[in-house]
Amino acid sequence: MAGETLITVVGNLTADPELRYTPNGLAVANFTIASTPRIFDRQSNEWKDGEVLFLRASVWREFAEHVASSMTKGQRVIAQGKLKQRSYETREGEKRTTFELDVEEIGPSLRYATAQVTRTSGRGGAGQSHEAWSRSVQDRADSPSSGWGSPPTDLGFQDEPPF
Amino acid sequence: MAGETLITVVGNLTADPELRYTPNGLAVANFTIASTPRIFDRQSNEWKDGEVLFLRASVWREFAEHVASSMTKGQRVIAQGKLKQRSYETREGEKRTTFELDVEEIGPSLRYATAQVTRTSGRGGAGQSHEAWSRSVQDRADSPSSGWGSPPTDLGFQDEPPF
Amino acid sequence: MAGETLITVVGNLTADPELRYTPNGLAVANFTIASTPRIFDRQSNEWKDGEVLFLRASVWREFAEHVASSMTKGQRVIAQGKLKQRSYETREGEKRTTFELDVEEIGPSLRYATAQVTRTSGRGGAGQSHEAWSRSVQDRADSPSSGWGSPPTDLGFQDEPPF
Amino acid sequence: MAGETLITVVGNLTADPELRYTPNGLAVANFTIASTPRIFDRQSNEWKDGEVLFLRASVWREFAEHVASSMTKGQRVIAQGKLKQRSYETREGEKRTTFELDVEEIGPSLRYATAQVTRTSGRGGAGQSHEAWSRSVQDRADSPSSGWGSPPTDLGFQDEPPF
Repeated sequence: MAGETLITVVGNLTADPELRYTPNGLAVANFTIASTPRIFDRQSNEWKDGEVLFLRASVWREFAEHVASSMTKGQRVIAQGKLKQRSYETREGEKRTTFELDVEEIGPSLRYATAQVTRTSGRGGAGQSHEAWSRSVQDRADSPSSGWGSPPTDLGFQDEPPF
Repeated sequence: MAGETLITVVGNLTADPELRYTPNGLAVANFTIASTPRIFDRQSNEWKDGEVLFLRASVWREFAEHVASSMTKGQRVIAQGKLKQRSYETREGEKRTTFELDVEEIGPSLRYATAQVTRTSGRGGAGQSHEAWSRSVQDRADSPSSGWGSPPTDLGFQDEPPF
Repeated sequence: MAGETLITVVGNLTADPELRYTPNGLAVANFTIASTPRIFDRQSNEWKDGEVLFLRASVWREFAEHVASSMTKGQRVIAQGKLKQRSYETREGEKRTTFELDVEEIGPSLRYATAQVTRTSGRGGAGQSHEAWSRSVQDRADSPSSGWGSPPTDLGFQDEPPF
Repeated sequence: MAGETLITVVGNLTADPELRYTPNGLAVANFTIASTPRIFDRQSNEWKDGEVLFLRASVWREFAEHVASSMTKGQRVIAQGKLKQRSYETREGEKRTTFELDVEEIGPSLRYATAQVTRTSGRGGAGQSHEAWSRSVQDRADSPSSGWGSPPTDLGFQDEPPF
């Protein structure tokens, strides 16, 4: 895939995610993210809310079930995905187009909250234990793909004072 | 603020976040996100890992404490922030520059995990109850800022079939 | 301004930009960017076009005049701006919402084209000569803001072999 | 490709792009983009420059030749690409890592400039005439990929007053 229009949105859920299943058993969760910019008003010398952006979003498969069981109305989230356009007909037969976020990654924001995270599956496999998974991540951190003389974590991230 | 270079990174923590406090009591959490692209190999007709990007990140204040108490080594996260450059001197007196993510928003990815989220404070106030907070979000969802004839949730998001 | 939903779009103009003036003489240019993702089809082992995203865009003031005099139908552009929502009433009195790009930066893509660029004004001033302007940029490149021991261009970007 | 860390940078070139050719004749252009955020100072009630971000960038093939023949020192550009990390050895044998922008799209910003654009080639073919190319773009604009009842430009973008 190339040339997709990627977008990152930060905002609050306007309602609990709606979880449904397609006829062949595929899970899909739909929800709306309300993103409110903050504008600095030079006259009053203070910040106030700008115009809200409401973006309808969808997420699929197990990921949808994770979202539905973890997120609730009002929660602040950070989401990244593809901005898509959809055309449809109203009940009166009129054609409309709308925009939607095809979510690739989403999580609860930790800015005003904490989270207790439970791993459900490894990338590409549901049965992978947490230990195996964190080992494989560590392996990757220790020996990044060829081309590196040695991992950057050894070069500067761990030895140097600035961090 | 205008003209900042914003970036969204998805990846795994290479270690638990390190939480420290400045002399005047400000919390700061530091950690490294390892982001691994997936590349489709046309010859073998399958996906494989590309070169890892290691990005050092920092987050401040209560937000830092939330990150430190919620995130652990290996966890997949989604983060957005400003890409910044820092110069420093090594112990040998050499000058170096490095890049760092000044985190504005971060959360655990729900792609392969679920999360139990606990709200700690309202925007701009620690004492706000969950009820007050979700009421204020609902208020905003019901009556977006002036310029809207009526909220878009009433126009199409709830009445129309596509969602 | 904080918390705006920024988006970068690459695509082709569906028509020449329309330049108009508000009653008090402010220029505004409107146009639509058609962004076509490319999808790799594993069955045929080749790339093909995905669903087009049409995004309506607007740009203001002198910037609008630059766009109107430089860009034409079919041209490939790269644009960054805020994703905004607008509500309006149709001639039949129906309420609708739509999405629009409030352009902050735009230029013709050089992927399949060359461009002869003519500077019209300095940042914050129309009368600045090209020489004064490029000198000020050079000054900034030579002495970045405090906190830098010395500019990074001297540390590695010019002395080291990797580039 | 999936999971790449995409970034959009707006800034000024610190020098003319350097165009070189690999032993097998592939063109590559290198340059540095200096991006200067603007920060609003509440005490003085005015905007001032923030810390500059210097990002080394590279672009390949004909695209590199377009950049080298169109862009000059001091020019304001908008670029999108993948953020990459590179490790290398200094002449003294020390290992270092640096960050670089692998440019996917770049153009001169029209904020303070105009541009005269000359098309050099069609997507995937150098011999395509401008007429053929703009016809193909028009075709795409007129009949977007299946799934659309009719193009959104017909639904609202051209008929409705808000634009």
